[in-house]
Amino acid sequence: MSDQYIGLDIGGTKILGALFDEEGKIIKRSKKQSKADRGEEVIFGQVCKVIDSLRDDSGRLVAIGAGVPGVIDRGRILFSPNLSWKDYPLEEKLVQRYSVPAYIGNDANVSLLGVWKHGIGKGCSNLVGFFVGTGIGGGIVINGSIFGGSTGGAGEIGHMIVLPDGPLCGCGARGCLESLASKTAITKIFRSQIARGRKTYFEDLLSREGYVLKSSHLKEAYVGGDSLTVEVMDRAADYLGIATASVINLLNPQLVVFGGGVIEAMGELMIERIKAKASELAIPGLFSACRIELSELGDDASLFGAISLIENGLGIILQGR
Amino acid sequence: MSDQYIGLDIGGTKILGALFDEEGKIIKRSKKQSKADRGEEVIFGQVCKVIDSLRDDSGRLVAIGAGVPGVIDRGRILFSPNLSWKDYPLEEKLVQRYSVPAYIGNDANVSLLGVWKHGIGKGCSNLVGFFVGTGIGGGIVINGSIFGGSTGGAGEIGHMIVLPDGPLCGCGARGCLESLASKTAITKIFRSQIARGRKTYFEDLLSREGYVLKSSHLKEAYVGGDSLTVEVMDRAADYLGIATASVINLLNPQLVVFGGGVIEAMGELMIERIKAKASELAIPGLFSACRIELSELGDDASLFGAISLIENGLGIILQGR
Repeated sequence: MSDQYIGLDIGGTKILGALFDEEGKIIKRSKKQSKADRGEEVIFGQVCKVIDSLRDDSGRLVAIGAGVPGVIDRGRILFSPNLSWKDYPLEEKLVQRYSVPAYIGNDANVSLLGVWKHGIGKGCSNLVGFFVGTGIGGGIVINGSIFGGSTGGAGEIGHMIVLPDGPLCGCGARGCLESLASKTAITKIFRSQIARGRKTYFEDLLSREGYVLKSSHLKEAYVGGDSLTVEVMDRAADYLGIATASVINLLNPQLVVFGGGVIEAMGELMIERIKAKASELAIPGLFSACRIELSELGDDASLFGAISLIENGLGIILQGR
Repeated sequence: MSDQYIGLDIGGTKILGALFDEEGKIIKRSKKQSKADRGEEVIFGQVCKVIDSLRDDSGRLVAIGAGVPGVIDRGRILFSPNLSWKDYPLEEKLVQRYSVPAYIGNDANVSLLGVWKHGIGKGCSNLVGFFVGTGIGGGIVINGSIFGGSTGGAGEIGHMIVLPDGPLCGCGARGCLESLASKTAITKIFRSQIARGRKTYFEDLLSREGYVLKSSHLKEAYVGGDSLTVEVMDRAADYLGIATASVINLLNPQLVVFGGGVIEAMGELMIERIKAKASELAIPGLFSACRIELSELGDDASLFGAISLIENGLGIILQGR
């Protein structure tokens, strides 16, 4: 029987999972709703449903890896703003139920690990990742390791301050990158502009309470020339470019990589504008030493990253990728 | 005969030097004008005058260390905005003349090294230094080493963008921290406010062309309640606090240390306001994991740092400090 590994991406809306073979190739995928508001055991039940739907009699499950949004300490989810887990012993629960080792990491760091080990970041020893979706996560690889800082909290790129006295952010501060360029921020800007009478592609959709823009619609409206969309997305890209310049001047990385739903839907349209802004603001010698690229791994960044967590944890390298 | 070491701080205005004994204690000091605009060999001549005035028949000179503003590569000053050295082989020239090893580093990194090895940063493995003087320099210690990034340029804290479309900076960008909170920036703000008719302590001094404010005068005027000074210095502290919050969220350091003429003259008056602003903007868990402190080594930070360069270079540790 061959060895198999499960990688999970546990998000606030959905849980993605993939079964990997002993060569590190994805052989099966699964997806369930997180049911994040139904209590911590319901979420764990959904995680188990994903795992159970992936397991296969043809192989032996060796380990599970998972990326989770929030603050994680030795396998416990101390706090997760998008899930109702609070001090939840996820690693222990998975080990108890499946009798295999489990490795848990912060989702942005896990995505960065995926991009670094299995995507466009391969071979870099200093890189920074920006993941732009509902929020903005990030991660930093320094001298060939994911950098955690002094207490494991480093890499909060979404909470760099890019506009003094800017909009209120979920973290309580004003003017964080996340409050200006995340999908949540963009949705808010659309709603307030519509309230002021601006016409846009999104008028009807956003008249529904609680509706959050889809990244694919943003691309459609942008390419279609919807003037509010162009204005809002260009401004978001400019703030991302400002943060990129600061990161380049501070950390002199070889690569800044952009992923997440918003960026991956918009693609080069957004990357080119981010690059232009960063080029205007970063120190020329540091800018020219740094590539700025689209991740291109999509949701698989986190799944591959979860497998890298397993590789690190077990001290193995899956061949064949 | 006992061993002796010389540490130098070669600045755009003056060259400071100190003779250290074998226990790493300062036994003699010297100071000369840099004569930075008189050509590269004149500056080197001034450096030699400092060294010659420090040497002492009672000891044997073992090595020289120096901090220099600018981009340095293997002992050569590739470029220095405040000195006329361009691709100048400083290490080689010193070795030729004094027949001892010489170690050259970027001044901000050397000051950080001093603070880290011999000042308030002792024992920290993750810290960030802000040095606020004519410009704003910085340095980062990560996992127990000065962090150079991918091409040696990391730590340009003065060129984090803190105000989009802000004032033009010497680096060509707009809104860099240096363009808002350095002594050069502060002087410009005073001049433009005086031109608009604002009354201030500095009116007469600043009527002299080319006059640059003295840090000690800023403290005097601030304590004396000069309203323009209070306004300008508080705003500078706020921008430093914004940059501090971004650095804390990004790097999760144990310590952010502030030095340089402006900060050391203003002391806790400025540190307290920087702390307050950073506390308002940084993620609470990361803020509480980080001390924000005044360096307190003054100009000696760079001299002690120069001695640390020697220690690193020779693989020795001077006892007794």
